[in-house]
Amino acid sequence: MKLATYKDGSRDGQLVVVARDLGLAHYATGIADKLQQVLDDWGFVSPQLQDLSEQLDAGRARHAFPFEPARCMAPLPRAYQWADGSAYINHVELLRKARNAEVPESFYTDPLMYQGGSDDFIGPCDAVVLPSEAMGIDFEAELAVITGDVKMGVTPEQALEGIRLMMIANDVSLRHLVAAELAKGFGFLQSKPATAFGPVAVTLDELGAAWDHGRANLVLQSTWNGRKVGMCEAGPEMTFHFGQLIAHLARTRNVRAGSIIGSGTVSNRGLEQGGRTEWPKGYSCIAEKRCIETLQDGKPGTGFMRYGDTIRIEAKGKDGASIFGAIDQVIAAPEESGKTQ
Amino acid sequence: MKLATYKDGSRDGQLVVVARDLGLAHYATGIADKLQQVLDDWGFVSPQLQDLSEQLDAGRARHAFPFEPARCMAPLPRAYQWADGSAYINHVELLRKARNAEVPESFYTDPLMYQGGSDDFIGPCDAVVLPSEAMGIDFEAELAVITGDVKMGVTPEQALEGIRLMMIANDVSLRHLVAAELAKGFGFLQSKPATAFGPVAVTLDELGAAWDHGRANLVLQSTWNGRKVGMCEAGPEMTFHFGQLIAHLARTRNVRAGSIIGSGTVSNRGLEQGGRTEWPKGYSCIAEKRCIETLQDGKPGTGFMRYGDTIRIEAKGKDGASIFGAIDQVIAAPEESGKTQ
Repeated sequence: MKLATYKDGSRDGQLVVVARDLGLAHYATGIADKLQQVLDDWGFVSPQLQDLSEQLDAGRARHAFPFEPARCMAPLPRAYQWADGSAYINHVELLRKARNAEVPESFYTDPLMYQGGSDDFIGPCDAVVLPSEAMGIDFEAELAVITGDVKMGVTPEQALEGIRLMMIANDVSLRHLVAAELAKGFGFLQSKPATAFGPVAVTLDELGAAWDHGRANLVLQSTWNGRKVGMCEAGPEMTFHFGQLIAHLARTRNVRAGSIIGSGTVSNRGLEQGGRTEWPKGYSCIAEKRCIETLQDGKPGTGFMRYGDTIRIEAKGKDGASIFGAIDQVIAAPEESGKTQ
Repeated sequence: MKLATYKDGSRDGQLVVVARDLGLAHYATGIADKLQQVLDDWGFVSPQLQDLSEQLDAGRARHAFPFEPARCMAPLPRAYQWADGSAYINHVELLRKARNAEVPESFYTDPLMYQGGSDDFIGPCDAVVLPSEAMGIDFEAELAVITGDVKMGVTPEQALEGIRLMMIANDVSLRHLVAAELAKGFGFLQSKPATAFGPVAVTLDELGAAWDHGRANLVLQSTWNGRKVGMCEAGPEMTFHFGQLIAHLARTRNVRAGSIIGSGTVSNRGLEQGGRTEWPKGYSCIAEKRCIETLQDGKPGTGFMRYGDTIRIEAKGKDGASIFGAIDQVIAAPEESGKTQ
């Protein structure tokens, strides 16, 4: 089934069930108002939503209406946890190679993951409001899962059982703040502002054969200012699968229902073509493009995002159908300049 | 007023109002069930709780009952954000000095802060369950505030207006995991397991004159295995006040209602006594004690916590009264060893 959260003026919005083809939706009223409620009591509530989902797909839901992604908040408009991995080691290799830095051997066995802010997510079609263009605004196209309760110390295999839903994310990054912030040693804070998520969160059965033991064989498309810049394969080059990422997070603590775990920027390796390395599948964040340019030409040629820029992120299966709907948003300045420092 | 959350088998517990002297409590039923509800709609709900609080303090609340901290969850059993500063620069100086490292100049003007996990907090009298004694188990005694909605780009002065409640925290740390984790560059994750909070969260008027423009002139006592090891002054040596910490967090994003911001380990400077530096006020975490020993004797003499160890943390005002009640908990192994990796 596919679930979304419609704006209704409240902080957590209103839960809707969305048809597989994303054409129609139906309020989940009477079953659950908010997605967090469903995650808190998954065993009891989700079968009722599944019934409604089947009625909707069969054209038998009585009060169905056309699904409008622009009316969506993030599926969880706020969450109790957002922990983002960096599961595509190629992304890390590329960024390090461009600055002549080594990738430590441990990075191939011990996942990178940071704790992100989760109190204020951005809806799929809402503006990404940021205080300054000078901060190096970047998108990061990712997959993410939402978990149920996962016990401290689970194995990666057990952790896979804890996955309830999957969605797509735009892990907005402020590149010019990263170096100074990481040098302080406490991780990302100001350099990782609010994150956006796609319109619908889906159960794993919606992925069909594309779900492959913790990895999703989907193509993640990124379109920047109307130009398709990334057609990245999310499955085969994911160094750590979602079960490994969740188990990493759960090593010293319980992970509770409604936790969101991200894959990090989906990234594919370059290919040798006529004595030069090319990246035919493109990129899922501008930082990678700039590293590619540095490796190819000695310096980056592509600038970061400006106010008014648009970014569209969408994941498609083998049949070309959109699984999660599209993130489709504009970068914007704060409305009243007096609010910024 | 003082607010607490009683265990009732649910994830978010049941909101109670607690008398100023922590003697009696009263369910907030009919006003609000959960503390997050109050924070979401503070202007409307908090005056009603204030009325109940005044009745309780005046001995006129009809269904009051003796307050039992052992029945408490953390005031917010789970939250949408936990961002912990390191506002006592002395703590940073001490840890760096012991390993012969410099404190960068910027640390005196730009606060250190990390994003922590907030999906699974520990109640004030609940066991701190950790997978291994070999991880270097440490407590950290801190103050923390809970905010309302705070806009991106606020000034430190404006941020002070966003503070709703204050409480105490035990920011449990796994010291032996810190170095390797920070070396990866993505901040704390496994080395900062679940955090515990004191029984009651209080509005700032409960601090009286001890609340001094973003700083709290209270003594934070830490008692480890029944021995008082810290009597630290939380006010004058706080390098960054809570308004500055919140403004730091809000530089590139909105901070939403129910966000918890921590002070970091409360720490006081050493004093020259007979040619030797002494720390008469003790320590609020074992790592500091070990650094003090390293500076005084060349090596640490105190080990970290073991299963069965107890830690009690309590903040007292000038009159010696407990403001927030006490964190009083034991370190414990997971119940079924099969659950840990």
